[in-house]
Amino acid sequence: MISKMDKPQTLKGFRDFLPEEARKREYATNILKGVFKLYGFEPLETPALEYEEILMGKYGEEGNKLMYQFTDNGGRRVALRYDQTVPLARAIAQYADMLPSPFRRYQIQPVWRAENTQKGRYREFMQCDIDITGADSALADAEIVACTLDAAKKLGFTTLAMNINDRTLFEGIDPKYLIVVDKIPKIGRGAAEKELIEKGMPNSEVESFMEKITSLKPSENLLKLFSYLEQMGFEKNKDFIFNPLIVRGLDYYTSTIFELVDKDTPSLSLAGGGRYDNLIGIFANQTIPATGIAFGFDRLLETMESRGLFPGELASATPKVLVTIFSPELAEKSVEITSVLRQAGINTEIYPNESAKIESQLKYADKRAIPYVVILGPEEAEKGTVVLKNMQSNSQETLKVSDLPTALASPGHALQG
Amino acid sequence: MISKMDKPQTLKGFRDFLPEEARKREYATNILKGVFKLYGFEPLETPALEYEEILMGKYGEEGNKLMYQFTDNGGRRVALRYDQTVPLARAIAQYADMLPSPFRRYQIQPVWRAENTQKGRYREFMQCDIDITGADSALADAEIVACTLDAAKKLGFTTLAMNINDRTLFEGIDPKYLIVVDKIPKIGRGAAEKELIEKGMPNSEVESFMEKITSLKPSENLLKLFSYLEQMGFEKNKDFIFNPLIVRGLDYYTSTIFELVDKDTPSLSLAGGGRYDNLIGIFANQTIPATGIAFGFDRLLETMESRGLFPGELASATPKVLVTIFSPELAEKSVEITSVLRQAGINTEIYPNESAKIESQLKYADKRAIPYVVILGPEEAEKGTVVLKNMQSNSQETLKVSDLPTALASPGHALQG
Repeated sequence: MISKMDKPQTLKGFRDFLPEEARKREYATNILKGVFKLYGFEPLETPALEYEEILMGKYGEEGNKLMYQFTDNGGRRVALRYDQTVPLARAIAQYADMLPSPFRRYQIQPVWRAENTQKGRYREFMQCDIDITGADSALADAEIVACTLDAAKKLGFTTLAMNINDRTLFEGIDPKYLIVVDKIPKIGRGAAEKELIEKGMPNSEVESFMEKITSLKPSENLLKLFSYLEQMGFEKNKDFIFNPLIVRGLDYYTSTIFELVDKDTPSLSLAGGGRYDNLIGIFANQTIPATGIAFGFDRLLETMESRGLFPGELASATPKVLVTIFSPELAEKSVEITSVLRQAGINTEIYPNESAKIESQLKYADKRAIPYVVILGPEEAEKGTVVLKNMQSNSQETLKVSDLPTALASPGHALQG
Repeated sequence: MISKMDKPQTLKGFRDFLPEEARKREYATNILKGVFKLYGFEPLETPALEYEEILMGKYGEEGNKLMYQFTDNGGRRVALRYDQTVPLARAIAQYADMLPSPFRRYQIQPVWRAENTQKGRYREFMQCDIDITGADSALADAEIVACTLDAAKKLGFTTLAMNINDRTLFEGIDPKYLIVVDKIPKIGRGAAEKELIEKGMPNSEVESFMEKITSLKPSENLLKLFSYLEQMGFEKNKDFIFNPLIVRGLDYYTSTIFELVDKDTPSLSLAGGGRYDNLIGIFANQTIPATGIAFGFDRLLETMESRGLFPGELASATPKVLVTIFSPELAEKSVEITSVLRQAGINTEIYPNESAKIESQLKYADKRAIPYVVILGPEEAEKGTVVLKNMQSNSQETLKVSDLPTALASPGHALQG
C-alpha cells in the first residue's frame, strides 16, 4: 500500500504560516491588541479542549455537527474550541469571585470547525473578539463600535463604516422573511422580493413589507448609541450608519447589532457583533448582559493584502542585514561585527557556515529578502572596514566598522533602498 | 443523574489564563520574540491538527501513548501537535522550494500531551523553540546558545548559564549508565555510584567510570563553539560552562547538547536543546543538519514570578485610568474626556453604566487594579476641571481637563504612586 505520507501534507482546511505570512499576521494582531488595550480590554485565554458538555448544544444543530469532538485517553468526552463566547461564559461563571463586573476582555485564539472547505473556508482559523459583559447600557455598545472603528483605522482602512441596527425593530416579523431582508444588499431588491414570495409571502403584501422594512426608524436605544458615538468624534452616515437591512444570526442577539462593512463593497463584512443578553449567564444561572464583536481575521488580512495596507518592510525578512563569512579564517571578524550590530539593536543574521561561497550567501540573502549584506574580505579586515551592499539597488559602499551600526540604523542613509 | 457541569470547569491539566497571567505571558513572549528577531529568526506557525501518520512513531513509545489522537468527521486519523520539531521537519519537506536553507525559525504555540497531571505537568502547554536547519557548523550552535543567553538576560535573569556538552564524548558508554550520569547533579555522586551498581556495573569499575566521566575534555567541536561564544562576548565558566555530566535524551541528539541552568539552583533547567542532525530530514528523505533549543515556557514564567522579574505595572490592569460617570446627565462629558485621553495614547476605560454609584465605580477600579480614576461632578463640569485620583496613594487633585493627558502621561507627576 502506498502511504499518503509519500508527500508530506497538512490536513484539508488547515494551514501553515510561513515567515512572510506569519509576520503579517503578527503585525495585524499587534495593532488590534494595541487598540483593544487603549479601550481598556484585558486579555483572556481559554484551553483548546473543553468538556464536550460545555460546548454541546450551544451552537445549534450545525455547531454540534461541525464541532471536533472525541473521547480522550481518560474516557472523557472532549471538544475543540468552536468559538470564544461559550468559553467566556464558562469562565465568567467559574471565576465569578475573581473577575470584575463589568468585564472587558479580548481573546485572540484559533478555533476549529469541520467546515466544508470547498467554500474557501478553513477548519482552523483565528478568532479575534472583544466583549463587555455585565453592562446593559448603550454606552457599552458604543465602546465596542468605537474600538472596532479605531482598530480598522489603525490597520489602514479608510472606507469602512459600521452598519448598525436594532433587532427589536423586527418584532412580529416572521424570521423566515428576515433571512431574505439580510440578503437585500447582496442580491438586490428585485431578487429579494421574488424570494419573499417563494417563502410564502402573499404577492399583495410584498410591497408594503419592503416599504415597512426600508422605512424603519432607529430605536431609542440606537439613538442613545449614536449620540455617544458622535460625542466620541465619529460621524453619522460616514463612520456609522443606521441600516435596517442588517439582521445577523437570529437566535443569538437580543437588540443592537452591528457589522463593519466596506462602503465601496457593501458585501464585504470584516467584523460583526451585537448585544446578546441571554448567553453569557448560561453557566452562572443568571442573566448577564453582554455586547461584543468578532473580527473576521482571515478576511481582514486578505483585504489588507489586496489593498496594500501592510508596510513594505513586512515583505522583507526579519533580519535587516546578513553578515557573510568570506573564509573560515575571517569568520571571527564577521562574528564580532554581528555582535556589534545586535548590541545596537539591529536585527542581524550571520551566515552559519564558514566555508560557503560568497555567491551562495548573497543568493541566500536575496531569497530571504534581507535588505542589506555585509562583506568582510581580507583587504577590509586589514583596514578595519566592511563593504555594505544594498540588495535592492545592488549599490555598495565601503565603511569603517565603527560607522556600520549608524549607517544601518539611520533611515536616511544613502544606501537605503 | 447529577451532571458534572453543575460546576463549570476546565479539563484536568488545561488552564485558563485570566488577565493578569495573560499579560505576563504576553510580556515574556514579546521579549523572547524580540531577541529571536535580533538573531534573524523568522516566525513559523503550523496547524494544531496533523495527519496522525505524520506524528506517529516520531516520539517513541511514550509519545504514541501520550498523543491526543482521534478520527475526525471525515474518517481521517488525526493527532494534536505534540511538539514543534516534527511539524518543522514536515514543513521543510513540504516547502522545500520556498524555504531558504539554512533556515532559522522560531515557533511559539501550544502543544498537547496526555501527561499524568499529578506530577504538576500540564496537558496543554506553550512551547517556544528556536532552530537553525541546514547548517552543520559550530557557528550555528553558537547562534542558538547566544540567542538563548541574550533572551534570558533580557527577561531579567542574572544567574543563568548554559551548560554545554558533546554527546560524542560518550561513545562506547552503555546508555543505561548514562541515564545515571545525568542525575549526578541532582542526586549526588554517592547515590549515583550506588545506582550504577544496581544497573549492573561491577563494583570494581565504578570509581574508574566516575573518574573517566568527570575528567572528560571538550571535543574539537566544542572548542570551536566556545571560541565563537567568546568572540560574541560571552564569558567561559560564567555565561557558558563545559559540563560533561549533562546527557539529555539519548535518541535524539547527535553531538552538541546544552541546557540553560541556574547557577544557584543547578537542578532548575529553563531551556534545553542541542544538535540533532538525523531528524529534520525524515520527510525530505535526506540528511538535514539542525540545531535548536526549546524554552520551558511555564517554568520560565514561574521562575520569573518567584524572582520578581515582571515589571510592577503588569500587576495593574491594562487601562491606566478609569473615567467614572457621576450621573446620567454628565455621561457625555465623561465620554468626551475618555476620547481625549485615548487620542493621547493613554489606555483608558470608561465605566459602561451611566447610573452606577460613584462608590461602586471606585470599588471596581480597585478590584481591577486600575492605577488612576477620573471623577467629573457637576462642579467640575461647570469649571472645566476634573478630579484625578491615585488609587494606590488615595491622594487626589483637581486639574484642568486640558492638563489631564499630560498629567497621566508623565511618569514624574506628583500623583504617580
